[in-house]
Amino acid sequence: MFNSLIIKSRISGTYKVDFINDLNKQLSQINDNKSIFIIDKNVLNLFPESFKLIKLNSRLVIIESGERNKTIEYCQFVIKNLIELHVRKDDKLIAIGGGVTQDIVAFISSILFRGVSWEFFPTTLLAQCDSCIGSKSSINFDSYKNLLGTFNPPKHIYIYNEFLNTLPESEIRSGIGEMLHYFFTDGINLAKEITDQINEIIFDRSRLEYFIKNSLNIKQKIIEIDEFDESIRHIFNYGHTFGHALEAITNYSISHGQSVTLGMDLANYISLKLELLNSHDFKSMHEILQKNIPEFEFTDDNIFDYLNALSKDKKNKGDKIGCILSKGPGKVEKRYIENNEWLRKTILDYSNFLKAK
Amino acid sequence: MFNSLIIKSRISGTYKVDFINDLNKQLSQINDNKSIFIIDKNVLNLFPESFKLIKLNSRLVIIESGERNKTIEYCQFVIKNLIELHVRKDDKLIAIGGGVTQDIVAFISSILFRGVSWEFFPTTLLAQCDSCIGSKSSINFDSYKNLLGTFNPPKHIYIYNEFLNTLPESEIRSGIGEMLHYFFTDGINLAKEITDQINEIIFDRSRLEYFIKNSLNIKQKIIEIDEFDESIRHIFNYGHTFGHALEAITNYSISHGQSVTLGMDLANYISLKLELLNSHDFKSMHEILQKNIPEFEFTDDNIFDYLNALSKDKKNKGDKIGCILSKGPGKVEKRYIENNEWLRKTILDYSNFLKAK
Repeated sequence: MFNSLIIKSRISGTYKVDFINDLNKQLSQINDNKSIFIIDKNVLNLFPESFKLIKLNSRLVIIESGERNKTIEYCQFVIKNLIELHVRKDDKLIAIGGGVTQDIVAFISSILFRGVSWEFFPTTLLAQCDSCIGSKSSINFDSYKNLLGTFNPPKHIYIYNEFLNTLPESEIRSGIGEMLHYFFTDGINLAKEITDQINEIIFDRSRLEYFIKNSLNIKQKIIEIDEFDESIRHIFNYGHTFGHALEAITNYSISHGQSVTLGMDLANYISLKLELLNSHDFKSMHEILQKNIPEFEFTDDNIFDYLNALSKDKKNKGDKIGCILSKGPGKVEKRYIENNEWLRKTILDYSNFLKAK
Repeated sequence: MFNSLIIKSRISGTYKVDFINDLNKQLSQINDNKSIFIIDKNVLNLFPESFKLIKLNSRLVIIESGERNKTIEYCQFVIKNLIELHVRKDDKLIAIGGGVTQDIVAFISSILFRGVSWEFFPTTLLAQCDSCIGSKSSINFDSYKNLLGTFNPPKHIYIYNEFLNTLPESEIRSGIGEMLHYFFTDGINLAKEITDQINEIIFDRSRLEYFIKNSLNIKQKIIEIDEFDESIRHIFNYGHTFGHALEAITNYSISHGQSVTLGMDLANYISLKLELLNSHDFKSMHEILQKNIPEFEFTDDNIFDYLNALSKDKKNKGDKIGCILSKGPGKVEKRYIENNEWLRKTILDYSNFLKAK
């Protein structure tokens, strides 16, 4: 299989993804007097040998990249650090970390000197299999999640499998959920393959490389057509409308990718009830998804909050919920559905169906 | 002469400049439920009749757009106001004001929801004749002028001549200085024309429309080739390297455009001494420029500060000052010159030459 991808971008022409197996070599190759490294503190501590020379010799900003720091204020703090390191327009920022590190560096690169070049070493599975390509950055503003952001892809992405070895199982399952949503927009085979070996993957992360490549490959085809998320890229909201609302009402205690897994299964259940999806396809997809569905139950106690969270989705039109439904593996369709008693009952039915199994 | 321009942009495809003569009609045409107006407080107060309906019926943010508010913090304050007005991605922001209003709204439009559409009514001469096209926004960060910014042109620009009637003479002279720098990159005729009637213009601002159109026309040809200021657009730094340093050491007490006027004359004097420019051309350009040169004298007391300010210019390479010199009207050339004793002496000579006249 390929070891690099060239992604077309309306912003930067093209950018490249390389799957690398020698981190130290790669770091020393890109480390010159134009480089400023912005590295997640945890990653720095988990791979002390790899970053020893950078700590000693390079311009370096260490960041704490929890979701709570994905803010405009924290970006300003990082910019102050960059100024102290005498950042110039022709420097390049090298981001090393997960999605939040990516968001912070991509956003800063967009607004500093009207644009500074940046490169990215994604260290989480979610960042490697999904967010590293597609150009989006998102920054929280006050209590508003992802209100700010830009489209600004890195010039170069380096995917190093061994970063995944230090991740907890929950993050692997989160990444698998995100990949499942790409795989199901394409067909059923890859989704079946990855869930068939889910337990092996937890213990042997090298098995993920094949799936990451496929996931990026599926995403690439769509973002090259619709980089700015104005049309066909909307298919990747599959599982996300229902997943985001679940994340919101559980205070983000369920991981993003597992919320998306349940979100897809629920979207499929709604599609089944609307007779968009036949029961054979629903079942074969459910058998796959259930291997990654989190523990959760919709009840009379939480269904109001859930419907309310759904009603706030940015993709809605008026009172209708904008979501992606399924007509079978590889066949998704954008629909606007009523947020009504039928939906309430259908979601509670779905939970009973899950419980009965 | 034309009443509208279509500008090509790599960011937005094209955008349009319209010279309008009925402000009220234009405002009521664009005022719909997607519009949010962001208006400079002074402009709002100076034209109360025009903005009466907007104050009553429209979503409106009133801003105080002094240079001190051209900051990331003030942008955050404006974003909070927009959130209170329930801003959405498909809204359009309508900026009405001068360069600072433009910078604030352009910057916010770049980072809100990964890009919101905006339109612009420039109300100062500098904004009408220059900054309204070219896509740049600039925001100060801490003590660093214009450190942040983006490229993000408005979708539509409306130039209304009567806004200019309320401006003080200093702002008219500032705009004339900026236009002179465009005119001299093109030839000598327009520069002569505008300075020949400078006193009449001060009292009859309708005479400016012809020059604004020519200024935008000259700028358009270059920004369509080099929107991102990577090559040929550098010619518009003519007068600016020497002008910026003058603004800096006088604490911005001399207007931008008059500083640029002196900056061009000084660049020409240096060009003369380097034998790039012949004395006939120097003299004919000087006769024009002197009609807009501010009162200022380089002395042993301020020359060190001035050379120091020059040494901080972003366009420098190492110790050399990156500047645009002249080979005659319409003929500019990028050069890197030493910041040395010769330059010090030449600048003091220039001041003596000015004084002797």
